[in-house]
Amino acid sequence: MNWYVQNGKESDVIFSSRVRLSRNVKGYPFKTRCADEELKEIYNKLKEITPLIGYNLKFLSMQDMDELTKQSLVEKHIISPDFAKTKMPYTAIIINDEENICIMVNEEDHIKLQVFTSGLDIDNILNLAIEIDEKLEELVPYSYHQKYGYLTACPTNVGTGLKVSTLVHVPGLEMTGNLSKILNVINGLGMNVRGVYGEGTKAEGAIYQISNNQTLGITEKEIAKNLNLITQKIIEQERVARKYLSKNSVKLEDKVYRDYGILTNAKRLSEEEAIELLSSVKLGTDLGIIKELTDKKVSELILYTKPANIQKRLGKKLSILNQEIARCEIIKQIVKED
Amino acid sequence: MNWYVQNGKESDVIFSSRVRLSRNVKGYPFKTRCADEELKEIYNKLKEITPLIGYNLKFLSMQDMDELTKQSLVEKHIISPDFAKTKMPYTAIIINDEENICIMVNEEDHIKLQVFTSGLDIDNILNLAIEIDEKLEELVPYSYHQKYGYLTACPTNVGTGLKVSTLVHVPGLEMTGNLSKILNVINGLGMNVRGVYGEGTKAEGAIYQISNNQTLGITEKEIAKNLNLITQKIIEQERVARKYLSKNSVKLEDKVYRDYGILTNAKRLSEEEAIELLSSVKLGTDLGIIKELTDKKVSELILYTKPANIQKRLGKKLSILNQEIARCEIIKQIVKED
Repeated sequence: MNWYVQNGKESDVIFSSRVRLSRNVKGYPFKTRCADEELKEIYNKLKEITPLIGYNLKFLSMQDMDELTKQSLVEKHIISPDFAKTKMPYTAIIINDEENICIMVNEEDHIKLQVFTSGLDIDNILNLAIEIDEKLEELVPYSYHQKYGYLTACPTNVGTGLKVSTLVHVPGLEMTGNLSKILNVINGLGMNVRGVYGEGTKAEGAIYQISNNQTLGITEKEIAKNLNLITQKIIEQERVARKYLSKNSVKLEDKVYRDYGILTNAKRLSEEEAIELLSSVKLGTDLGIIKELTDKKVSELILYTKPANIQKRLGKKLSILNQEIARCEIIKQIVKED
Repeated sequence: MNWYVQNGKESDVIFSSRVRLSRNVKGYPFKTRCADEELKEIYNKLKEITPLIGYNLKFLSMQDMDELTKQSLVEKHIISPDFAKTKMPYTAIIINDEENICIMVNEEDHIKLQVFTSGLDIDNILNLAIEIDEKLEELVPYSYHQKYGYLTACPTNVGTGLKVSTLVHVPGLEMTGNLSKILNVINGLGMNVRGVYGEGTKAEGAIYQISNNQTLGITEKEIAKNLNLITQKIIEQERVARKYLSKNSVKLEDKVYRDYGILTNAKRLSEEEAIELLSSVKLGTDLGIIKELTDKKVSELILYTKPANIQKRLGKKLSILNQEIARCEIIKQIVKED
């Protein structure tokens, strides 16, 4: 089963964790300064060594991939929105069937090695990423500087080249009006708080991405430890908020069940409304108020009601109106499934 | 089964029909000018003759009746809100088990003889009312004037003393913005349009009471015929509006099913919100969009979610909050019933 519809640790608050290592191939300029011929060489080199990395990784050209598949990977948080949109040649992903490992080729850097998991489990995915990174480095030498560490296109990644992030669900903090306070504290501690698809995207359904912004002068283990600590604090505060909300249980029960009622009965739902309703319904499910759903089903509902995933499921392009109608049918199917 | 939870003719638009005959006992002043002793004589006279009228009628003193029972009769449209509230002595109702016949004693007039039915069936209830009226007149002589006809406390009832009314459900006209136009036409034709509990009450859930305002210089049959005609016109116009709305069926389906979702999942519902949702759900049911309910169930839901009926059902007085919670539980029970 793919990681993104499983429930990991602390899944009442944490959707998923990700580590991302930015690497560049020695002897080549950064991607934006590469000539087409150079990009092609990097692309071919990575294609050639893919079977040697292990982990059942497959090399998939982005040029050969249809738009819906690209967009559905964005919706799974596996590739960046910009990478899905690029028309640049010689871009690819190296990915396994479980989709918990995905290397973007010629995205911002030559290599963006990513490992994902559901829930909060930073140590394990960091260990796996480091293991893959070491194998990769044996096959393609990296740009590395004695003093600065790994060299990256964007200066915010220089050093370890490591970004660790967690996707958190904080409806309790939002409802109690404590969210902006908490987010300010997180920012003050040198962490980034972003929308659901990372930098420059907006938050919806009380879902935020938390990531480190320091990559230089700090070890990988320290970055992971800090982000884990911050995420634990958010979980703690979110649970306090939920406990507080649960005291006025009729009001909360009423809200989450009304949202459940609309979600499961509407005949048309926009993407935005669906995620807001699902956020509320997830809260109700995680608090044990809504008995009709499991957290796993909520994860499926969140993913499979996204535009590209709807169209992939139905195997055809749909107008916005028809997506909105299909969204409701898919919700009913998933809710009914055993 | 009581008439108010049955479905009569044209039940997609018409909840119920009522005829009401205002009568006063010969030799007594109108009620407001009666001395207590006189009211007592009228009260005792009507009590004494009740078994002689037939129809299994029972005489029930309003003074002996608890508040919840009185209020539940108002909610069934069987007695007027003012009559339920009065602290005047010597008031009573003469009623049968089916509750389709109810004579109010010492309300505005000494005698208000009413016959009810679900749906639209004015001729039959008028015939029954006239039949009972004739028996009653043999037992208690009425105040009658050769020129003016039956004399009544309120001049708008003088003559035939007959008020015919229908309770109509016109969400289609409301949604298409045609309601005020139609209501103006009805007013212009000498009919009254009122809220759901008659004069001076407000409309809710697109439910209106239509009644004649002419009682003098016109026969009973003509009054009935005119009101029947107007009601038929409303039915016709309402069905045109619904047909128009059905053309944008996704929008309508979405609306009625969202309202169904909230109705059946909320944990707290105010009386006002409940009737608005039920109005929409009834429209969906009558148009065959909502398959989960029948019109009979909708009638039950409308009645049994009213404050006094909720408290009668639970056998105790409840705070507003607890009524709102109980309302949701009763809705779930009725929806589930076979």
